[in-house]
Amino acid sequence: MPRKLTLDPDRALPPEPALRAIARELYAGIASLPLISMHGHVDAGAIARNDAFGDPAELFVIPDHYLRRMLVSQGLSQAELGVPNRASRGENAESTQAVHREIWRRFCENWRLFRGTPTRYWLEHELVAVFGIDTEPSADTADALFDELSEVLSRPESRMRPLFDSFGIEILATTDPAASPLDDHARLRADGWGDRVIPTFRPDALHELTRPDWPEQIRALSEASGIDVVDYRSFLEAVRQRRSAFAAAGARASDHGPATADTTPLDPVDAQALFDAALAGTADAAGAAAFGANMLFENARMSLDDGLVMQIHPGVLRDHSSAIATEFGTDNGFDIPVQVEFTRALRPMLDAFGLDPRFRVVLYTIDETVYSRELAPLAGAYPTVRLGAPWWFLDSPGGMARFRELTTETAGFYNTSGFVDDTRAFASIPARHDLARRMDAGYLAKLVATGLLSIDEAHETARDLTYDLPKLAFAPRTTAAL
Amino acid sequence: MPRKLTLDPDRALPPEPALRAIARELYAGIASLPLISMHGHVDAGAIARNDAFGDPAELFVIPDHYLRRMLVSQGLSQAELGVPNRASRGENAESTQAVHREIWRRFCENWRLFRGTPTRYWLEHELVAVFGIDTEPSADTADALFDELSEVLSRPESRMRPLFDSFGIEILATTDPAASPLDDHARLRADGWGDRVIPTFRPDALHELTRPDWPEQIRALSEASGIDVVDYRSFLEAVRQRRSAFAAAGARASDHGPATADTTPLDPVDAQALFDAALAGTADAAGAAAFGANMLFENARMSLDDGLVMQIHPGVLRDHSSAIATEFGTDNGFDIPVQVEFTRALRPMLDAFGLDPRFRVVLYTIDETVYSRELAPLAGAYPTVRLGAPWWFLDSPGGMARFRELTTETAGFYNTSGFVDDTRAFASIPARHDLARRMDAGYLAKLVATGLLSIDEAHETARDLTYDLPKLAFAPRTTAAL
Amino acid sequence: MPRKLTLDPDRALPPEPALRAIARELYAGIASLPLISMHGHVDAGAIARNDAFGDPAELFVIPDHYLRRMLVSQGLSQAELGVPNRASRGENAESTQAVHREIWRRFCENWRLFRGTPTRYWLEHELVAVFGIDTEPSADTADALFDELSEVLSRPESRMRPLFDSFGIEILATTDPAASPLDDHARLRADGWGDRVIPTFRPDALHELTRPDWPEQIRALSEASGIDVVDYRSFLEAVRQRRSAFAAAGARASDHGPATADTTPLDPVDAQALFDAALAGTADAAGAAAFGANMLFENARMSLDDGLVMQIHPGVLRDHSSAIATEFGTDNGFDIPVQVEFTRALRPMLDAFGLDPRFRVVLYTIDETVYSRELAPLAGAYPTVRLGAPWWFLDSPGGMARFRELTTETAGFYNTSGFVDDTRAFASIPARHDLARRMDAGYLAKLVATGLLSIDEAHETARDLTYDLPKLAFAPRTTAAL
Repeated sequence: MPRKLTLDPDRALPPEPALRAIARELYAGIASLPLISMHGHVDAGAIARNDAFGDPAELFVIPDHYLRRMLVSQGLSQAELGVPNRASRGENAESTQAVHREIWRRFCENWRLFRGTPTRYWLEHELVAVFGIDTEPSADTADALFDELSEVLSRPESRMRPLFDSFGIEILATTDPAASPLDDHARLRADGWGDRVIPTFRPDALHELTRPDWPEQIRALSEASGIDVVDYRSFLEAVRQRRSAFAAAGARASDHGPATADTTPLDPVDAQALFDAALAGTADAAGAAAFGANMLFENARMSLDDGLVMQIHPGVLRDHSSAIATEFGTDNGFDIPVQVEFTRALRPMLDAFGLDPRFRVVLYTIDETVYSRELAPLAGAYPTVRLGAPWWFLDSPGGMARFRELTTETAGFYNTSGFVDDTRAFASIPARHDLARRMDAGYLAKLVATGLLSIDEAHETARDLTYDLPKLAFAPRTTAAL
Repeated sequence: MPRKLTLDPDRALPPEPALRAIARELYAGIASLPLISMHGHVDAGAIARNDAFGDPAELFVIPDHYLRRMLVSQGLSQAELGVPNRASRGENAESTQAVHREIWRRFCENWRLFRGTPTRYWLEHELVAVFGIDTEPSADTADALFDELSEVLSRPESRMRPLFDSFGIEILATTDPAASPLDDHARLRADGWGDRVIPTFRPDALHELTRPDWPEQIRALSEASGIDVVDYRSFLEAVRQRRSAFAAAGARASDHGPATADTTPLDPVDAQALFDAALAGTADAAGAAAFGANMLFENARMSLDDGLVMQIHPGVLRDHSSAIATEFGTDNGFDIPVQVEFTRALRPMLDAFGLDPRFRVVLYTIDETVYSRELAPLAGAYPTVRLGAPWWFLDSPGGMARFRELTTETAGFYNTSGFVDDTRAFASIPARHDLARRMDAGYLAKLVATGLLSIDEAHETARDLTYDLPKLAFAPRTTAAL
Repeated sequence: MPRKLTLDPDRALPPEPALRAIARELYAGIASLPLISMHGHVDAGAIARNDAFGDPAELFVIPDHYLRRMLVSQGLSQAELGVPNRASRGENAESTQAVHREIWRRFCENWRLFRGTPTRYWLEHELVAVFGIDTEPSADTADALFDELSEVLSRPESRMRPLFDSFGIEILATTDPAASPLDDHARLRADGWGDRVIPTFRPDALHELTRPDWPEQIRALSEASGIDVVDYRSFLEAVRQRRSAFAAAGARASDHGPATADTTPLDPVDAQALFDAALAGTADAAGAAAFGANMLFENARMSLDDGLVMQIHPGVLRDHSSAIATEFGTDNGFDIPVQVEFTRALRPMLDAFGLDPRFRVVLYTIDETVYSRELAPLAGAYPTVRLGAPWWFLDSPGGMARFRELTTETAGFYNTSGFVDDTRAFASIPARHDLARRMDAGYLAKLVATGLLSIDEAHETARDLTYDLPKLAFAPRTTAAL
């Protein structure tokens, strides 16, 4: 008998009965609020085209490097999990179907590897609550599940737009390269979805002077902006043009994932020299780092005019295994965090713009050591700084609990952005928001149960964290007041 | 109907019933012990003069940069909160009164910003338990509260000395610059308060060679010590004289807040060169850092003779916003922590004096990452090292809980100093001590409930942490044995 | 009336009743599983000779620098605790007996210092469960306890081998210098204990080029390997020989305790130059560090052939007090952790071998900041990386709880090694394993109680963590699959 999959209605709430009762009451008050999803990586084209998800391997396994890395960490190969087969999808439907069934079997056989992880939490939620599955994945159930899920996924109501509606998403931000023509967003706007799906300006690739594809990035920037980028001055002009174009297309924010949080500006003469070196193909790592820091500063300066909220999430060493990167490309689960520093790194930017009411910045970290030491004190002082939700590996029950424990006492609740989900996996969005609501309800319940907060205040705060604060943190600038 | 302010008698105790019952019993055994307040920043002059607190804005808002920074972080300006008005206080009583009422309104309107913070905890305790208020601050209640509090604060029993008595303070240490003539303490001694209020020697300003006001500091040192400070040798002599004068005036400790914990001594020839550069106005940052490290070492050496307990709390970047510092001065909420290192930094000092029974040092941190990694192992080895209580931002329910969790297993209870409150806000002292007693009761209750400690031992330990250990850690040297 | 020592049957389980009930059930399922002890420091000779433990001071106090450091941290001297007397043991039995009784008194008088520490937990378990004592140590009970324990320790069943049996140890790994002739293990093998006690290859001393005794280490290596070590090439050959000899004697792993985790390989020409400098007595600290990093890389490379699992535990500054080291030698409680970095440091080794199915590495840390930031992401990606159990100071209830909380969500359970005890104190082994089982039961109980894991899965996972994973992590390579 296969084990049944069910969702405990009290899951992720505190286990102690008195706390649980309070948490349950608080959660009930926010469980069905609309989803504000202001920092995601869903493909705008998939929504524009109202794509179907394909088969279960295509939905759950192949595109999810967070899930695949766990299988790889226990000895499965990227190839077994469909990575090199992605290019051939559709070319040979029958064999692809067979290959995908095999991939799905590998995943189901290894279900136990996800015990205690947020992947397991999200998958259970998706299988049960989104797709109506009640059988636990295992070697025995893999084939039947593949068939059952394939059928469910082929239904019209399993496509992107009906799911978007049924999830209760009020607004969703995608992430788009600076040179994107934003065609998909134009199509969405034409369909009346312009207020529901908005772009986010992501210029990282333009700042990394030593990237092999940097010349292409610059060419694409020239094309998209209509400005011939030939030097640092025209580069800044083109960046500014793209930011305006994004803002005009509804963007509320820019998104920056540098190696460090350094924001030291350069003398324009020095920036020009580094840019020239990159054009000549002679940029080095130190120069690229200095240029990247300068560009954080310059994007902050530009935001005074265009009102895009700045988002910074530094501190990841990309492609730790060069063999994986060479053979299978980037985004295959081998991005590993390193220590980050914010206090000194952000000082140039905050000293220049940190008290300017036109500026807004949301900070994310994957290095938890800066929560109580640096991030909460910064957000608890500068009126322009908000703390983003726990990011990536920390988007988990324990990660969320530690975030509140380590930031609230110094920064309060109102210097945080509320929940943002940072997901590529569209079908996991409701699970992630639901989990955040449960964890915040649990945290607030403890404050109530220990006499530190009244139940009325807890209800109001729960609603603010869930709905009002994320709307406010990314509100068009003119309305940015709670 | 405004919400009533009340204090839950079980506040901050563990919510689980079995733990709470034990914690309640342990707390009852220590709740009314006298307060030992060995590391504070209350103004000795205010006690000497038996000052009144003025109006509610003067008591709660204007002087408390910890509270003000939270309002500033949500868009209020320092000016709105009375910072530049401090100089004019008293010059124009009527308009000041109106201005202060406005400040108080801003604070009351924003009461919700403090949810989940220790500021909220202290304020509630002060309003209810110290001043008998039972109405929650809000936009609606601000004016009535201003009037009610103004009346309470005008009563004789709301002055410093009656409050000192009613709080049950046995002894309170102030913090005083090295060049202080200690007049206020002399006056207190003359009033028979010499054993109740004692000074602490704070020489930081003398060690920071690049401070704009360093020449003045040296002039003041010359004057206070009666030693003409013209070179490094006479400087050391004058420092030694001030330490002796403090000890003679009842001081038990010195207090050091350097940027780092470096204690590397200098060759006197090199120290002299750095001192000469400072006299000539040519000191640089590196030289100042080296000189500061040397002076930690030299103060440690001097303590062998005069018996002052050394206190070190490094790791804060002062005045992160230069705009705030320029316009409003220091201590306006923009001091942000940075990572600190103790193991290597303290090694020169501990290698020289760490086993010497004449030496004692208490270590504080605002960087929690060193608790289990560095501080607990150091305190669990050197007989001269004690861990101070969680400092500044960490003087909070969660901060205290993490301190015990991260240090006790390695350092035990008896290598900690017990609670010290580090407060400027006199009226918050009982709240802070009470909170520490509740958190320690909760931590001990968990040990009892999980079979790791007997209830008898927990009672004894609770009393030691509350009363005996802080007395011992700062005892005059001859009696320093528990 | 002396206080009775008892062991709460529910000790270290979660205090909340619902959690406790689940944890109790999970613990019951694993409490009596055999002990897999794959990373210890018990003396193989003591088992080979079936030694007795001597008197209580010889068993509990004198050899345990972890316990002694706590007494030293409160003012007792190393000499009072028997450190310099070790050489004279047996020379003058009567006076030694009197001296040891004094040492035991010091320990019993200071029993309270261990409150809240794992030392207290282990000692209680040993006294009650291993040696049948039911009186709490104190000044009053010290003498009677000394006599009672001396009698118990003199019984045949208190010797090494009967205890080994009664503890239920299935296999125990010792740690042995690279140049060890492994005589004790040969004797154990001859007694039929070859599968129960195995060696571990520990080459650190060979890599530290600036150690005063490095020339002796090299001479011993030459002798043990039969290879005349005269240059870097012959050095590598000799190291390879010793690794093979260890593997032939049953070793499963190597053990490395470098100052940092750096694994950068050297060009053989550069390695030869550093080795030559060491032979000439002119090696410096930077060269020694580079050579040590290179040797981690080379040991990893050799493990592809001989199959020894690599274990790395960096980040301790040894002999923080040079006075203690000079007077009393190393291992006297003054080894203090420093911050470590893994992501960048391990990259050369993992880039070379991290995807190779012949390679296996287990990582330990005493710096908890790397759990969620670096170690869990690395173990959750590379198939060759496992996380070891919380090490040294972190081998404690809180240390174990934080390890699971900070690693499970990213690395899962199956990328950890299960419990290893890292102990020198043989009689504490059952206490340590029992504590780990209780803490894992408690962690799993919370997942069950919050709806994140089914009870069936929790039972299976508990067994895996306790028994299957440590066997698998250190399995002979051909059988290394769960």
